[in-house]
Amino acid sequence: MTTRLDAVGNLRSRLEGPRGAPTLYLGSHLDTVPNAGAYDGILGVVLGYAAAEALQAGGRPLPFSLEVLAFSEEEGVRYGVSFIGSRALVGTADELLDRLDKDGQSVRETIRAFGLDETELPGALAEANALGYLEVHIEQGPVLQDAGAAVGVVSSIVGQSRLTLDFAGQAAHAGTTPMTLRRDPLAAAARFMVAAEDLARATPGLVATVGMIEARPGAGNVIPGEVSLSLDIRHEFDAVRAEALAALLDTAGREAAARGVTLAVTPRMEESATPMDAGLRAGLHEAAAGLGLAAPELVSGAGHDAQILAARMPAAMLFVRSPNALSHHPDEMVDPEDVDAALAVVVRLLETLAGEARA
Amino acid sequence: MTTRLDAVGNLRSRLEGPRGAPTLYLGSHLDTVPNAGAYDGILGVVLGYAAAEALQAGGRPLPFSLEVLAFSEEEGVRYGVSFIGSRALVGTADELLDRLDKDGQSVRETIRAFGLDETELPGALAEANALGYLEVHIEQGPVLQDAGAAVGVVSSIVGQSRLTLDFAGQAAHAGTTPMTLRRDPLAAAARFMVAAEDLARATPGLVATVGMIEARPGAGNVIPGEVSLSLDIRHEFDAVRAEALAALLDTAGREAAARGVTLAVTPRMEESATPMDAGLRAGLHEAAAGLGLAAPELVSGAGHDAQILAARMPAAMLFVRSPNALSHHPDEMVDPEDVDAALAVVVRLLETLAGEARA
Repeated sequence: MTTRLDAVGNLRSRLEGPRGAPTLYLGSHLDTVPNAGAYDGILGVVLGYAAAEALQAGGRPLPFSLEVLAFSEEEGVRYGVSFIGSRALVGTADELLDRLDKDGQSVRETIRAFGLDETELPGALAEANALGYLEVHIEQGPVLQDAGAAVGVVSSIVGQSRLTLDFAGQAAHAGTTPMTLRRDPLAAAARFMVAAEDLARATPGLVATVGMIEARPGAGNVIPGEVSLSLDIRHEFDAVRAEALAALLDTAGREAAARGVTLAVTPRMEESATPMDAGLRAGLHEAAAGLGLAAPELVSGAGHDAQILAARMPAAMLFVRSPNALSHHPDEMVDPEDVDAALAVVVRLLETLAGEARA
Repeated sequence: MTTRLDAVGNLRSRLEGPRGAPTLYLGSHLDTVPNAGAYDGILGVVLGYAAAEALQAGGRPLPFSLEVLAFSEEEGVRYGVSFIGSRALVGTADELLDRLDKDGQSVRETIRAFGLDETELPGALAEANALGYLEVHIEQGPVLQDAGAAVGVVSSIVGQSRLTLDFAGQAAHAGTTPMTLRRDPLAAAARFMVAAEDLARATPGLVATVGMIEARPGAGNVIPGEVSLSLDIRHEFDAVRAEALAALLDTAGREAAARGVTLAVTPRMEESATPMDAGLRAGLHEAAAGLGLAAPELVSGAGHDAQILAARMPAAMLFVRSPNALSHHPDEMVDPEDVDAALAVVVRLLETLAGEARA
């Protein structure tokens, strides 16, 4: 393979196919978060190289080019924006060049300090007529473990909304203020949290999470005057998410108003869902079935580079079971047999695609 | 009047009655909290002196001794224990002499640094055969304001329980963890908070407050792993409070267990209710009625020195309306006409008691 670093620091290795043949991309990201595990991202990179090696060992030249992508930045830890690496392949990384890290260093300066040149970003673009992008990644959740499956085919990467809800009432004495004369924002917030759990449980595929909550002033014998909380809501269909979000905000507003409490809602993030390519998904299912492997479909509840590449080419993902459902944690793990299964599925899919291209 | 400081720093002024006559105590506390208002405590002290002045101006000697008490410490700010002043009158202040403030200075050292002598605490005891203790205090709540009454007669000082509830589940990814596979302690805590509000609303006189809540790790896209919250529950009848508390802890335990979450309950404080003396309450009602004043009965949701004195003598309280329901706050206020009304009620009651004693 011939290997290069592109202008945003992605490591890219090519097996060149026949002149003019399209490229199939395989890969994932090299970075992870601080105090993380050993598999997030890097597993998909290594599997890309392993698949290339297996196909070369097969002896027969591929009828397309194969490029293994190891993205330089996916998590967004340093610049508060995710997917800087994969954005370079779809032409949207240059919008981020002036973003600053906490020390005031821009993306542009970081690229240059690494010995690269951001003016060469156009050379990082993916092919316009690419065959597709295939990403293997650990699931980072409990679904495959719960289903007893080594691998799973991602149907869609969820869309998500993240918001802050601020409830404001009146701090008052916990002993001297009767229930009927309270303006308790935490009581309203509790109703909202119950509604969020109830609705998410009742709506297939919906997840709703309150991860952050703060009540001020925060003394045991004082009714809170203000409560802030976060809402994170995700679904594979944007319409389902939008409808659920509207219903929950309506509940929050009604429970607040019923207590003389005001509600302010601040959107923090909004991302549309990205369905994975139907053809590649079918190919992954066929490959798994041909190997006698169960490969249930599942939704990716987290974002991945595949959702960026999907804007420019067919994209698909194969998840590998996370036996303890932990990720972004030192105890993150994979089972070697599951990795073997994933590699076999990818190689078989690529062989099938090669056969179809030759035919 | 003859005035002295007792061994715990209470300011005490006596109008001596006939030799061997019992004492009627009037008063409240001198201290309040940091950044407080102008009336908490001190209003009852000033009213005690004003009542004594009014009775002296009446010209006819009282058939009992009258002692105005200005307690040195009620709030518990410095030593984390309340009522140090009034405890000296019932013989329980000496148990607190070795308590330390945040700088490591004991109550004993503080007493000595003030030029007093803790070995003289026995001289601070109230009379064994006292006529009673009467305390005027701002309501610190919205009940009289809501009822449109200048003053109110306290039926009872609530009993209270304060606890910490610690819910422990499993922190997990907000996107990749389906609702069915979560162990979300905040979801359990929300159900508990709703149950607390519902039960308190449905139980006359019960107040239940969650004033403090913390979810860890506290990130918007992470299901919390641990939630701690406070519960403050109060009622004038200990049996009602105990039954409600048991029901709420049962709910908390069930909601936790239903989510694979554990619950640990830590009692922080438990105080029994203190009914006010029936005779003195009736006297306050008669005095108010004689003046044409509405004086509804209400429960004190906060603790007061009267609950300490009640262990040794008949004790009663008259509340003065808090027009904005604020206390422990610079905007704490009283209406001068309401203070006049309270003074008139107290003076009339004392005149009635004097008349009865003479007869």
